[in-house]
Amino acid sequence: MADTLNEARYELALANRIIAHEGVLDGFGHVSIRHPLDPGRYLLARSRSPELIEPADLLEFTLDSEPVTPPKGDMYGERVIHGCIYQARPDVNAVCHHHSHSVLPFCVTGIPLEPVFHMGPVMGQVVPLWDSRDEFGDTDLMVVKPEEGRSLAKTLGPHWMVLMARHGATVAGRTLRELVFRTIYSHANAEIQLRSMALGKIGALNAAERQRAEPRQLQPRPMARAWEYWTTRLHKAGALPPPVKSRTTVTRSNKRISKVRARRSRR
Amino acid sequence: MADTLNEARYELALANRIIAHEGVLDGFGHVSIRHPLDPGRYLLARSRSPELIEPADLLEFTLDSEPVTPPKGDMYGERVIHGCIYQARPDVNAVCHHHSHSVLPFCVTGIPLEPVFHMGPVMGQVVPLWDSRDEFGDTDLMVVKPEEGRSLAKTLGPHWMVLMARHGATVAGRTLRELVFRTIYSHANAEIQLRSMALGKIGALNAAERQRAEPRQLQPRPMARAWEYWTTRLHKAGALPPPVKSRTTVTRSNKRISKVRARRSRR
Amino acid sequence: MADTLNEARYELALANRIIAHEGVLDGFGHVSIRHPLDPGRYLLARSRSPELIEPADLLEFTLDSEPVTPPKGDMYGERVIHGCIYQARPDVNAVCHHHSHSVLPFCVTGIPLEPVFHMGPVMGQVVPLWDSRDEFGDTDLMVVKPEEGRSLAKTLGPHWMVLMARHGATVAGRTLRELVFRTIYSHANAEIQLRSMALGKIGALNAAERQRAEPRQLQPRPMARAWEYWTTRLHKAGALPPPVKSRTTVTRSNKRISKVRARRSRR
Amino acid sequence: MADTLNEARYELALANRIIAHEGVLDGFGHVSIRHPLDPGRYLLARSRSPELIEPADLLEFTLDSEPVTPPKGDMYGERVIHGCIYQARPDVNAVCHHHSHSVLPFCVTGIPLEPVFHMGPVMGQVVPLWDSRDEFGDTDLMVVKPEEGRSLAKTLGPHWMVLMARHGATVAGRTLRELVFRTIYSHANAEIQLRSMALGKIGALNAAERQRAEPRQLQPRPMARAWEYWTTRLHKAGALPPPVKSRTTVTRSNKRISKVRARRSRR
Repeated sequence: MADTLNEARYELALANRIIAHEGVLDGFGHVSIRHPLDPGRYLLARSRSPELIEPADLLEFTLDSEPVTPPKGDMYGERVIHGCIYQARPDVNAVCHHHSHSVLPFCVTGIPLEPVFHMGPVMGQVVPLWDSRDEFGDTDLMVVKPEEGRSLAKTLGPHWMVLMARHGATVAGRTLRELVFRTIYSHANAEIQLRSMALGKIGALNAAERQRAEPRQLQPRPMARAWEYWTTRLHKAGALPPPVKSRTTVTRSNKRISKVRARRSRR
Repeated sequence: MADTLNEARYELALANRIIAHEGVLDGFGHVSIRHPLDPGRYLLARSRSPELIEPADLLEFTLDSEPVTPPKGDMYGERVIHGCIYQARPDVNAVCHHHSHSVLPFCVTGIPLEPVFHMGPVMGQVVPLWDSRDEFGDTDLMVVKPEEGRSLAKTLGPHWMVLMARHGATVAGRTLRELVFRTIYSHANAEIQLRSMALGKIGALNAAERQRAEPRQLQPRPMARAWEYWTTRLHKAGALPPPVKSRTTVTRSNKRISKVRARRSRR
Repeated sequence: MADTLNEARYELALANRIIAHEGVLDGFGHVSIRHPLDPGRYLLARSRSPELIEPADLLEFTLDSEPVTPPKGDMYGERVIHGCIYQARPDVNAVCHHHSHSVLPFCVTGIPLEPVFHMGPVMGQVVPLWDSRDEFGDTDLMVVKPEEGRSLAKTLGPHWMVLMARHGATVAGRTLRELVFRTIYSHANAEIQLRSMALGKIGALNAAERQRAEPRQLQPRPMARAWEYWTTRLHKAGALPPPVKSRTTVTRSNKRISKVRARRSRR
Repeated sequence: MADTLNEARYELALANRIIAHEGVLDGFGHVSIRHPLDPGRYLLARSRSPELIEPADLLEFTLDSEPVTPPKGDMYGERVIHGCIYQARPDVNAVCHHHSHSVLPFCVTGIPLEPVFHMGPVMGQVVPLWDSRDEFGDTDLMVVKPEEGRSLAKTLGPHWMVLMARHGATVAGRTLRELVFRTIYSHANAEIQLRSMALGKIGALNAAERQRAEPRQLQPRPMARAWEYWTTRLHKAGALPPPVKSRTTVTRSNKRISKVRARRSRR
C-alpha cells in the first residue's frame, strides 16, 4: 500500500511538471488525483507552481476539500473544483484546472471549442461552457465556494472538459495519464482551431467521427507513447521531480489510511 | 551491405529526430525509408515517439506492411500509409506522416496550400487533399486498412505531399534527405501562408515559377547545407541518436537479406 | 540599512532579469524602484539590457532623474518616465517601461486593452492610452524631456498601466513584486485578448468583476507563488544575478544616505 | 592590418550567428561586409548555414561577386545581391539577405511594411518592394545573375531595406553592427505590424516621426546595448564562433592585400 501511494504521489508530481513543461500551465493552475487507496479523498499540492511540485508537496483532502491534517503551508484557493468533480463523478480519478493561452480565447468569445483533427475528441465529444455570471452574478471569477464548485461540476456533466468563461478550463480523466493526454491534446486542438478559424470556415469532425475517434485515441498504446515522450523531454530539461522520500510521512500516511479504513469498515 | 544498412538505420533515426526537433512532429507521426537493399521492404520504427527513435527501434516491413519477423513490441497503427505509397510509387524511397500545427489549418478548412515563397515548391507544385469521408464515410480518421492506404496513395498520385482532411499530411521523397527537406520547408511554407492570409490577399508563385523553383531548391548544395544545420542543432541539444550497435542484429539482418536475395534470384 | 539597500538592489537586478526572461522585455526597456531608505530617490540601472543587469549596475537618481553622483557609464535616455511617476504617485514604489510584442498592437491600433480573464485586472481596471502627438506633435517618440515624463504620468493618473502610442507601455506597482506581477500578467492578458479578437467578439470582465478580481489576484499568496516560479526558471537557466558585493559601494552609499538624512532632518 | 581583418572576420561570423540565433535567419540567408582594407572587395561565407559560420569559412569576393582565389568548397548562389549593392552604394558596408517569417507575409501580399513603433524606422523610412517578374518574368525566384542583382540594388535605391516578392528581404547598413540592428528590429517591426493588422486599423509613424526616430535609434548607445545583449545570449547558448586562427591564412590574406594595395597605388 505504501508503494502504491508513493508511486501515485510521484506520478502526480510528474504530471504537474509535464503539463507545465508542455506549455498548458504556467505559474498557476493545478492537477489532482483521487486517493489511490481511499476514494473519499484526493491528493493535491500545497499552493505552489505546478512545474515545481515535489511528492512532498502533496496534501490529502476530503471530497469537501478540507485538508485531512492541518497543512503547514498555504493551500490553493480553488480546490473545490477538484473536490466537487470527484463527488459528482465516481468515474473521474484525476482533474486538471488550467488557463491555457490556446483555450482561453474560446472562454473569452464563447465560440465553441470543437474537435477539428483526429486527436481532438480526446477532450470529449462536446465541451460545455460554464459562466460564473449565470448563477453567481459579478464575482472575482475564482471558484472557491462549494456551491461554485458544484455548479461547475454540474455543467461538466458527463463530459471530460468544461470551459470557464473569462477564466480557463477544467479537464477530467479516468486515470492520471488519461487526464494528461486529454489536457495536452485539447490544448493542441484549441491551438489548431484558432489557427484554422483565422484562415477560413472550419470543417470539424462530425458526431460519428468524434464517437469513433475518442476511444481510439485513448487506447493504451498511443497514451504510453506520449507518456514516454513527455517524460523524456522533462528528463532532458533536468526537470523530473525528486524521488519520494520521508519514510515517516509514508508511515504516518499509512496509519491514517488504516484508521480511515477501520472507521469506514465499522460503518 | 551491413554497412549500407547500418548507415541507413542511423540516418532514419536521425531524420525522425530532426523533423521532431524542428517542430513538425510531436509525440506522434512517423518517418520511414524503403529498405536500401531490398525495394520490396521498408524500415519503420516500432511504436515510439519520433524524437526518441534509436537505430535499434527500426523494424522491417513488407510493402503490405506486415513485419518481416514478429516484433517484440508494438507497431504503429498507420503503417499502411508507408507501405501503400512504396507500392504505388517506385520512385519514392522515404515517407513522413505528420500533424504539423502549421499544415493542419489547411486540412481543417480545405483552403489550398500553395507555394508562396521560393522554397515552397519543394512540397511539390500542387498539393492534393484527401478526405476519408469520400470513400469510407464516418471513420475514426486513422488510416489503418490497406484500402485506406491505397486510396490515400491514389490521391497523392504523382505529387510529393498530400493533405489529409481533419488529420494531417503525408510527404514523400526520392531520398531520405530530400524527404526531410520537403517536410520541413512545406511546414515553413504553410506557416508563411497562414500569416500572409491573416494580413491580406496572397500572391502565390505561378505555375512556371513553381516548375523552375522546385528542382532548383532540391539541388545537392542547399540540401547539404540544411542537413548540416539541422544535425548540428540536434547535436547541440544533446539529441543525436545513439550509434548503431548489435552486431548480432546486423548479422541476422544480413542473413535475412541473403535469404531474400537468394529467394528473389531463384524466381 | 546596508542590508535593506543591498537586498533591494539584488531584488531589482532579479526583477529586471525575470521580466526579460519571461519575454516582456528584450534588449530594451527598464525597471526601477524607489530608494528603500529615501523616498526622494530611485534606483535604476546604467544603460544596459535588462537581462544582464547586476546589482553593481544600479545607479541612484533624484526624482528629477539626475544622477546622485556622476556615473561612469551611460544612462538610459528615458529615465524621466520613472522620475515623473515617482513624483506624481507617492504610492508607487516600482516602475517598468517595456515594448512587449503582445501589448504593442494595442498601442498601434488604439484598440483598448481590457481585462479578458480573471488575472487581467492586475493591470488595473482601466488602461489609458497616451499619445506623444497630442501635446508634443511630431517627435522621435522617446520620452526624455521632463515635460514629456510629466504628461505621461498625468495620463497614467491613478491607474497602474499606461499605453504609449507607437511606442510601448509603462507599468507601476506599490512594491517591486507587485510591479513584476502586474507587468507579466498584463502582457499575458494582451496576448489572450489579441488571440481572442482574431477569433470573434470578446466578452471582457465587467466593471464589478474587475473591481473584485484586482485585489484578489494581488494577494500575497498568488504573488509569492509566481515569484518562486519565475525565480526558479531563471535559476535553471543559469541566469540569476551575481550576489551584491563591493562593501565599499555599500559603505559609500550609506554615507551618502546618512548625509541626505542629516540634510533632510536639518530642514 | 592583419588585426583589423581578423577582427572583421570574427565580427562577421558573430553577426551571422546573432541574426540566426535571434530567429531572423534559419538554415538559409547570408550576411556580408565590405572588405575593411579594400573597398573593392567583400567578405562572405562559403555555402554554409549562418548559425554555423566560423571565421575560417569567410571568402573574399570582388564586387562582381567573383572569388578572389578559387574556393575549395561551394559558394552561395545569390552573392550578386551583396556585390551589386556594394557597387551601387559606396555608403553601404554590410548586407544581410534573409527570409524572416515575420517579413515574408509582406512579400507575399504586397502590403507595405511601415514603421509602427519608435524603433521601426531603423529599417529606413520607406521600404520598397522588388518583384522579379517585373523585369525577368517567370524565374525560379533566385537572384543569381548580375542583372538581377543590379535590378534589386536599383529598387533598394537610397533606402536600407528592400522586400523581394515571394522570396524575402535584403537589408543594408553603414557598419556591420548597424546592419544587425536594422535587420533584427525590422523583423520585430514586421511582427508587430502583422499582429496589429490582425487586431484593427494601424496608425503608423508619420513622415516627420520616422525622420526623427531613425537617427535617434541608430546612435551608438542603443546599438552598443543591443550588441552586448545579443552577444551574451549567444555566449550563454555556447554558440559564439571559434576564435580566428590560421596564421597562414592571415599571412596569405595580408600578402594578397599588399599586392592589391600595391596594384591600386600604381594606378
